[in-house]
Amino acid sequence: MQPENTEKPILLVEDNPIDLDLTMRAFTTKKISNPIQIARDGAEALQYIDKWESGAPTPIVILLDLKLPKVNGLEVLQKIKTHPVFKTIPIVILTTSAETSDLKTAYELGVNSYIVKPVSFEKFLDVVGHIDLYWRLTNKHI
Amino acid sequence: MQPENTEKPILLVEDNPIDLDLTMRAFTTKKISNPIQIARDGAEALQYIDKWESGAPTPIVILLDLKLPKVNGLEVLQKIKTHPVFKTIPIVILTTSAETSDLKTAYELGVNSYIVKPVSFEKFLDVVGHIDLYWRLTNKHI
Repeated sequence: MQPENTEKPILLVEDNPIDLDLTMRAFTTKKISNPIQIARDGAEALQYIDKWESGAPTPIVILLDLKLPKVNGLEVLQKIKTHPVFKTIPIVILTTSAETSDLKTAYELGVNSYIVKPVSFEKFLDVVGHIDLYWRLTNKHI
Repeated sequence: MQPENTEKPILLVEDNPIDLDLTMRAFTTKKISNPIQIARDGAEALQYIDKWESGAPTPIVILLDLKLPKVNGLEVLQKIKTHPVFKTIPIVILTTSAETSDLKTAYELGVNSYIVKPVSFEKFLDVVGHIDLYWRLTNKHI
């Protein structure tokens, strides 16, 4: 459908080294060959705005954890979703929090989708597969 | 993951009877058993806001065509995405238009996702399958 989608980056915002490792292993297992950009806290995530403003390619999707050092995930979400240009980048919250207040705030701030990470790696692999199928192969981005 | 998601409605906003029939056939083929609500123009789609305000269950996802009689799809999108409560309902544009201006406006108005309908029914079945996997089984909604 959109073969060029294999070349654009996916931005992963995750501070927990174990979760980061699991996600990277899931990407490899699911044969996702896109360049993966990693931000290990909220401030690092926001630095990408400057890079995009300087012409760096925008990601096909941002996978954003909620509990992050320095700037939390909801603040990162708000900053990007109120940016005049980069508000159009799809953001998926990928978190262990199923708290209604987080869910509600994220949708109110304009998140594109919210996924609660399953505990088992097998089910997490399914979720990563669905993210790939949907955001890389089905969704059309700018 | 979320078994209760089979009971909530999916709202399909589509005026073209042939496309409507194709989509309903795809839902059946993909064994999507959720109640399907149909709005045949933009005004009918907006009437759902009154129904939700009166306590009717909100859909897990709204599949919204762009070219609609009475009120066009982008206006429907804007009305729902600026509603203080119902802005949180996921909206997926499902259209034949791959025009950059439509795509850009839809993302600026806060669409959750934008899908260009493939021409072949076989590929459209894949797309409907991905929509189901993602919005019913993977995404967590309020």
